[in-house]
Amino acid sequence: MKERVVVAYSGGLDTSYCVKYLAKEKNLEIYTAIANTGGFSVDELSDIERKAYELGVAKHVAIDVTDVYYNKCIRYMVYGNVLKHNTYPLSVSSERIFQALAIVDYARKVGAKYIAHGSTGAGNDQVRFDLTFQVLAPDIEIITPIRDQVISREDEIAYLKKEGVVRDWSKMAYSINKGLWGTSIGGKETLTSDKALPSDAYPSQPVKEGSERLELGFDKGELSSVNGKTFASKVDAIREVERIGSAWAIGRDIHVGDTIIGIKGRVGFESAAPQLILKAHHLLEKHTLTKWQMYWKEQISNWYGMMLHDGMYLEPVMRDLEAFLESTQQNVTGKVYLELHPYYFNMVGIDSAHDLMKSGFGDYGEVNKAWNGDDVKGFTKIISNSLKIYNKVNKGKLDINQ
Amino acid sequence: MKERVVVAYSGGLDTSYCVKYLAKEKNLEIYTAIANTGGFSVDELSDIERKAYELGVAKHVAIDVTDVYYNKCIRYMVYGNVLKHNTYPLSVSSERIFQALAIVDYARKVGAKYIAHGSTGAGNDQVRFDLTFQVLAPDIEIITPIRDQVISREDEIAYLKKEGVVRDWSKMAYSINKGLWGTSIGGKETLTSDKALPSDAYPSQPVKEGSERLELGFDKGELSSVNGKTFASKVDAIREVERIGSAWAIGRDIHVGDTIIGIKGRVGFESAAPQLILKAHHLLEKHTLTKWQMYWKEQISNWYGMMLHDGMYLEPVMRDLEAFLESTQQNVTGKVYLELHPYYFNMVGIDSAHDLMKSGFGDYGEVNKAWNGDDVKGFTKIISNSLKIYNKVNKGKLDINQ
Amino acid sequence: MKERVVVAYSGGLDTSYCVKYLAKEKNLEIYTAIANTGGFSVDELSDIERKAYELGVAKHVAIDVTDVYYNKCIRYMVYGNVLKHNTYPLSVSSERIFQALAIVDYARKVGAKYIAHGSTGAGNDQVRFDLTFQVLAPDIEIITPIRDQVISREDEIAYLKKEGVVRDWSKMAYSINKGLWGTSIGGKETLTSDKALPSDAYPSQPVKEGSERLELGFDKGELSSVNGKTFASKVDAIREVERIGSAWAIGRDIHVGDTIIGIKGRVGFESAAPQLILKAHHLLEKHTLTKWQMYWKEQISNWYGMMLHDGMYLEPVMRDLEAFLESTQQNVTGKVYLELHPYYFNMVGIDSAHDLMKSGFGDYGEVNKAWNGDDVKGFTKIISNSLKIYNKVNKGKLDINQ
Amino acid sequence: MKERVVVAYSGGLDTSYCVKYLAKEKNLEIYTAIANTGGFSVDELSDIERKAYELGVAKHVAIDVTDVYYNKCIRYMVYGNVLKHNTYPLSVSSERIFQALAIVDYARKVGAKYIAHGSTGAGNDQVRFDLTFQVLAPDIEIITPIRDQVISREDEIAYLKKEGVVRDWSKMAYSINKGLWGTSIGGKETLTSDKALPSDAYPSQPVKEGSERLELGFDKGELSSVNGKTFASKVDAIREVERIGSAWAIGRDIHVGDTIIGIKGRVGFESAAPQLILKAHHLLEKHTLTKWQMYWKEQISNWYGMMLHDGMYLEPVMRDLEAFLESTQQNVTGKVYLELHPYYFNMVGIDSAHDLMKSGFGDYGEVNKAWNGDDVKGFTKIISNSLKIYNKVNKGKLDINQ
Repeated sequence: MKERVVVAYSGGLDTSYCVKYLAKEKNLEIYTAIANTGGFSVDELSDIERKAYELGVAKHVAIDVTDVYYNKCIRYMVYGNVLKHNTYPLSVSSERIFQALAIVDYARKVGAKYIAHGSTGAGNDQVRFDLTFQVLAPDIEIITPIRDQVISREDEIAYLKKEGVVRDWSKMAYSINKGLWGTSIGGKETLTSDKALPSDAYPSQPVKEGSERLELGFDKGELSSVNGKTFASKVDAIREVERIGSAWAIGRDIHVGDTIIGIKGRVGFESAAPQLILKAHHLLEKHTLTKWQMYWKEQISNWYGMMLHDGMYLEPVMRDLEAFLESTQQNVTGKVYLELHPYYFNMVGIDSAHDLMKSGFGDYGEVNKAWNGDDVKGFTKIISNSLKIYNKVNKGKLDINQ
Repeated sequence: MKERVVVAYSGGLDTSYCVKYLAKEKNLEIYTAIANTGGFSVDELSDIERKAYELGVAKHVAIDVTDVYYNKCIRYMVYGNVLKHNTYPLSVSSERIFQALAIVDYARKVGAKYIAHGSTGAGNDQVRFDLTFQVLAPDIEIITPIRDQVISREDEIAYLKKEGVVRDWSKMAYSINKGLWGTSIGGKETLTSDKALPSDAYPSQPVKEGSERLELGFDKGELSSVNGKTFASKVDAIREVERIGSAWAIGRDIHVGDTIIGIKGRVGFESAAPQLILKAHHLLEKHTLTKWQMYWKEQISNWYGMMLHDGMYLEPVMRDLEAFLESTQQNVTGKVYLELHPYYFNMVGIDSAHDLMKSGFGDYGEVNKAWNGDDVKGFTKIISNSLKIYNKVNKGKLDINQ
Repeated sequence: MKERVVVAYSGGLDTSYCVKYLAKEKNLEIYTAIANTGGFSVDELSDIERKAYELGVAKHVAIDVTDVYYNKCIRYMVYGNVLKHNTYPLSVSSERIFQALAIVDYARKVGAKYIAHGSTGAGNDQVRFDLTFQVLAPDIEIITPIRDQVISREDEIAYLKKEGVVRDWSKMAYSINKGLWGTSIGGKETLTSDKALPSDAYPSQPVKEGSERLELGFDKGELSSVNGKTFASKVDAIREVERIGSAWAIGRDIHVGDTIIGIKGRVGFESAAPQLILKAHHLLEKHTLTKWQMYWKEQISNWYGMMLHDGMYLEPVMRDLEAFLESTQQNVTGKVYLELHPYYFNMVGIDSAHDLMKSGFGDYGEVNKAWNGDDVKGFTKIISNSLKIYNKVNKGKLDINQ
Repeated sequence: MKERVVVAYSGGLDTSYCVKYLAKEKNLEIYTAIANTGGFSVDELSDIERKAYELGVAKHVAIDVTDVYYNKCIRYMVYGNVLKHNTYPLSVSSERIFQALAIVDYARKVGAKYIAHGSTGAGNDQVRFDLTFQVLAPDIEIITPIRDQVISREDEIAYLKKEGVVRDWSKMAYSINKGLWGTSIGGKETLTSDKALPSDAYPSQPVKEGSERLELGFDKGELSSVNGKTFASKVDAIREVERIGSAWAIGRDIHVGDTIIGIKGRVGFESAAPQLILKAHHLLEKHTLTKWQMYWKEQISNWYGMMLHDGMYLEPVMRDLEAFLESTQQNVTGKVYLELHPYYFNMVGIDSAHDLMKSGFGDYGEVNKAWNGDDVKGFTKIISNSLKIYNKVNKGKLDINQ
């Protein structure tokens, strides 16, 4: 009886090569699986399924992990307003983890002896995949034909042709990865440091003019309504924001950052929904959280995003940081108003029962009854104490004029 | 002989009242001083001088602290990419400190027994002023007639009229504060949580169409050239960026945050130069700094900005954090390209001799000779070790699928 | 009908003065209350009660908050190994908060219009009390006769004598505060910078010789057994450790730190139970937590301890940080062995089902089957990448020999 | 002509095997080098030299890097009070880096094509060595015979015997590593989790009784005098403290922590000088630094120590953090008094011109003239503002009694 391998299959050249190579040269029983984190349509998935069976696989499955991905990851990225270097919503970086989790889970269920993936030896994804597989299924061996053979596209195509697989493998001008939390665009200009992507390299183009108002509702930090319509499924709510925002071509940018393997990488992306949702969420927090909640959220979310990017989602500290983040969201409930324009948007304001500006207690810049000028004088005296002492003991050292 | 008071004088109603009140009721010799952090033109300053002497002051001075403000403060805010809550460049907040430093220095030089300022008891500035004065000149007494008397505008006007000072004191629709590092706009909508400022409340309006390319040059983290023109004065370089950017009405936003006295405040601002310079500087850093330099800069700069906002500029730890920030900037040298549009801008790219993407060492996503797939496999195995052990000892606890 | 005041009463001179003063001069109905955080014995409490009624109070209560104090505070300090500046377990600092919480709760229940406490204007406790009272009961007015009158001990004694209260008010050589989480000792030497407290100033003296083994059991981070005996009450477990450790005079030290009001303070303390429990807990964590859990716990616990010390226990971020801390403790279960000597102790080791050293996976310094030398070579190559690139691009700048 | 290899040589079995193996089997010209970070005496070094030449090496050198190690590393560990997990002064961990730096520098100078070291595949040191060599000399190839061959002690001895090298290779009961900043002790009990090292496993034994006073002088954070005697060489000053402290057997403990390769490690150590110097330095800082300097030093030093332990000394951020640390030390000047006993010590106090307790400004717990009770009331009101607002808006949510 043949040993079984689960191949993480996308329908593309690399994973098609893996399927044929492992069946023919390694004599393995091929199960293909694709884990959908929200980037594939029903049509695309059935096209991929058809292609898998055309390659002669024993079984193909599409595993929908969109809800898991939302609940276990996107949710916390929203809580943390996670934008790597204040720019990139970790679109692809975070998806890969959940694809890996789904694949390894499936491989264990079907008793596979091997998992194969089509990564090369040059990117982040190989680390995210390998690490997740190894930690959760140390007994399953990982096979990476493309990485091991350092094979060229041409040789892959020739091999497949020899095996009777003839398709149009022509490469797109840009490599595009689409998921629920954004679309990455790589190629040409992103390999330079000084050139932007041309506007038409972005999948979404503005189809509207003027401006449009958008209302996002949040319930304990989670997006719960869009323009007054409540969504039972948070995933559907995100899709609705994406639909609205991408019509204005909102959320284009280029991310430059450190890859897991230590080199710098640059990639374009568009991410209407993440940008709109994160900025709206952040504004609502500015009204509902305290100064120190805001401070610690920034410190911790930076780390959370970094570790998530680096494939360390399974590190136990991530669960601890999520407990922190979740705890901060109890009052992050209310509506946020935005205004969309072609290519950019503005924040308008918020409305929340937890708005700390609406205390009826004292408005900024206005005299009030909860304290008076003497209280502030006393306050300032006391917070000056340590500096006064320092300056006296150290003979005027604090004076930067000197 | 009369005791001398230095009044921080702006030419407005509150400080005019202070001058008259202190001369008449307290029988003090009045010296007025205005500390210019870059927001006043020569004409405005001479107008203020004229007004001061019309009130009968013994002496008036305008102290230009723009260069000090740049060298001791803006420089570090640029190093740290300081944007409060990723939005607000601390325009007014940081200026106040340097105005206070100049006033107290002047007061000591002229042997003043008192310093007076026109703050009310409801804002941040009273704390920034009082604290700075008290720490550096504990023997000089602070007088704040407006705060102490909780006097209304109407009563101030009546008092001045009685003293023979008749001017047009009519209030502007919005209170506007202009400085080198941005302009704040408060009033009406900013007192609500849900309304944006109307477009015409912003001093700068777009006067161009289409788009314009902008090149900013940095030398060890400092802005050194604009569109190829080198500036000896960093202040002049900033003004040039402001001139270019404000013609596109770039940098409008609303800041919501915690005031020093614990209530939430909301204020509009425009800040073309800070936004363009900070984003350009940040992008250059993404190419020239290491992952851990970026990480620590974010953590530390958050704090630096918060303490600066809160009037704690003189805290010794600020000098220590500045030493850190300065040390990080040695390679932040190069050119940054941006593209300006009405109301927004895009980052194009950078060119730097220190660009870590240009190592000729290994490009992201491409096979290279410095390491191979086996090295990455080994790497991934080792970084998985702690998680593998954790999962084994704790019987599969890391598996979030369970 | 008289208005009612709740006086936080300790039986000492200051609070006795407050009682008499408020009854006589302010014509208030006096309720006295003492909140016990574990430092008072039954005898001491009944003595205090007797004294209260001798002063003529309408009602006296002793409120036992030891369990609340443990559950809401000590528990988290143990999770976080909180030792201010690696020295001081925040003994008194944390108790004051829970005394204040009990007092304000009681005042609301009995419909008091005022709360009075005996703080002077020079210490931390006035802030901890006032802040807690104001936040939770803004309608109850706070009265602080000692602070307001800046009255001397002599004048207090004279006033009380005049009112017919004659007791031995002679001052102890040292001011001693005892609670469940340690005893503070202030006076004479602690007012200097260069002198230690004499050995006999410490309440506990060594009564044993040689050494003694101690076994502490933890369950999810909480002390659960002592020398094999399980305690249903965590408070009783702590008392048992205190009983054992104080017989060796363990846990003496002097704390130097910043007071809330900005001056430096110095205070001696003994804290056998906290020191033994915290060090034991910390060692167990070193075996059961991951590197990054340890790292973030240190960063966050520093802050938690600081804010707790500064009276900001009610800040919402504290609840969020507690959620983080609690999440980290799931595997902190096992036994810890210590060895006690006069004045000091050693850590022996631990035994835990979650001990990450006992993985059967690979021991430090020994060859194993989970990875080999080539894997480490690959690992080291990859983690060197960013530095190799940096050094190449920046022409050997990393070489500190140059 | 033979190619040249520099072997990092210690005189022990592993490196002796490397020398013979590389000469015989690889036909290389052997240069041996030992980098002394302060742990070797003159006699030990000449013994090692003799042994090297007995093995037939072409050249042997002993490189003294003690001063460099102090200036580039120990100094900053003192500034940062670096104790890993509040216990371990990173004795061996930090030395290895400076040994590697010296070896790679020497290898480049003599034009070696290879560097060899005797590490196995199971410890931290291989990473520290490889990383440093690769980053600074990417063209020099690294050879690690022991790691590559996974050879046993017995086989090494047999090989050496065959090659005519007969010595007493019998293994010590414990593996001991001595350096300027401490001595590590591994073996037997340290491979368990629950057993302490026996007292006689520690090289230093108490040779005194009673107690002894020790005075350490610091100048801008650096140890400058011991018991009143000023030392021109900081290294000599450290040795003097070690001489005094080790006579009391001070500084014994066991470190448990995460190795670079992800497993937990446990090692005993003694470190009289580091413990005495670090605790003294820390106490002096408590008197001379501000609250926020202390806070940030703790946060940053944790990281500095972790990265240093993990072999990442060359990361540019380390230089930036050192700039921060150095900036904090300007006032850390004064004398610290300690009291030594067998196995432990106490802090007595300090004397410093920068002592912030000696301000003549206001002592803790005493009424003073710089502020009064009303000021503290005002202060407390204002710092309560945000919590009062939060509690009002959120309907009493802060009340933990509910």
